[in-house]
Amino acid sequence: MVPHTVRSFDDDLRQVRALVAQMGGILEAQLRDAVIALTEQDSDRALRVVMTDKVIDQLERQTEQAAIQVIARRAPLADDLRELISAIRISSVIERMGDYAKNIAKRATVLADVVPPQPMVIVPEMARLASMMVKDVLDAYASRDLDLAHAVWQRDEELDSLYTTLFRSLLTYMMEKPQHITACAHLLFVAKNIERIGDNATNIAEIVHYNVTGLAMDEDRPKSDELPIILPDPGQPQE
Amino acid sequence: MVPHTVRSFDDDLRQVRALVAQMGGILEAQLRDAVIALTEQDSDRALRVVMTDKVIDQLERQTEQAAIQVIARRAPLADDLRELISAIRISSVIERMGDYAKNIAKRATVLADVVPPQPMVIVPEMARLASMMVKDVLDAYASRDLDLAHAVWQRDEELDSLYTTLFRSLLTYMMEKPQHITACAHLLFVAKNIERIGDNATNIAEIVHYNVTGLAMDEDRPKSDELPIILPDPGQPQE
Repeated sequence: MVPHTVRSFDDDLRQVRALVAQMGGILEAQLRDAVIALTEQDSDRALRVVMTDKVIDQLERQTEQAAIQVIARRAPLADDLRELISAIRISSVIERMGDYAKNIAKRATVLADVVPPQPMVIVPEMARLASMMVKDVLDAYASRDLDLAHAVWQRDEELDSLYTTLFRSLLTYMMEKPQHITACAHLLFVAKNIERIGDNATNIAEIVHYNVTGLAMDEDRPKSDELPIILPDPGQPQE
Repeated sequence: MVPHTVRSFDDDLRQVRALVAQMGGILEAQLRDAVIALTEQDSDRALRVVMTDKVIDQLERQTEQAAIQVIARRAPLADDLRELISAIRISSVIERMGDYAKNIAKRATVLADVVPPQPMVIVPEMARLASMMVKDVLDAYASRDLDLAHAVWQRDEELDSLYTTLFRSLLTYMMEKPQHITACAHLLFVAKNIERIGDNATNIAEIVHYNVTGLAMDEDRPKSDELPIILPDPGQPQE
């Protein structure tokens, strides 16, 4: 009979990484469901997303506790310690992204009963891009793939540019149809939430870079959504 | 002659906590300056806030590196390890709050050249509340004061309620004066940023609770800004 073997450090590490992967899987589903709830005006689905967010919160606590226990028990050296701290940080970013998905779902419940403002058509395209970034960056973490992490980091520019387009369209639409202002205001925040999910995917890309190389990813990320000036249309009254 | 003494663990811990305190001090100044830049339409001040955000980012990296070095060197036991992990987490929350202050400053540069929409008058009051929460929760961290941490956590309800008031006022104002829609859209995000700063202060309160007691603060935080339904006024057209 095989004797009871002591768990190895690698087992401990695998367990922590598995928790992060589980969080990532739930986040991807949450994001998908939140956007379906929005576009199909499905309040029940939206409420399920809101409820499920607690699971992500719980898993974040578990991940952190597991990582801290491993650190306390094993007193790991630099590389392994970095790996565990990275897991804590990534789980905290995933938890935050989960909050954005929940927020989109909450707005979906408000928007379920109104005629969708026309610029809504841009939302699924934004969400598709953001979901791909989330999926790819979590794959990059799982496989320690620096190239994939960098690709995600680069791709955020495209999402930001789509955000700017949607922001402008919403403002123009609000001016033309003031009766849609409330719905459009909620959509402004939906758009911002998706844009923030992309930003957070690039944060994970930076943690993956640090995790694999031990160095900060210091080049400045390209940004095309930079304020200050986003105006709806040339010639619109600004006072 | 006194022999060269080896640094103690307490010295190491004090150094990490000092970095967090330094970040907190800069954040408080950033928040104050961002709101002054907004209300006094002072673009130069706004741009200084945007630039200074890099200092907070840099300090977050330093805090994390310092904490990781102490963990690697000292292999601390549970309580001390929790203290160091808490410092990493709080520095990451402060960095995020710094991003919100920066964002308010960016919007201030847009709003510097327009007539301020009337609901702007609520912003300084919101900012005053949020700043008090930030100051108090950082004091609670420095002095390990659970009562103060809980008081901050409770006070977030007041900020949320003010946020809801401002949100409603802005929507009503946009309907009445469509020429102010762009400015009001930026103010919606300013209001949201301040509300998020309050939320993040409660996150720090929870970390302080965990840091001092070793337990999660699990009662549900009171929330009065809950979506779904925020409408501008009864009887406004909603479609």
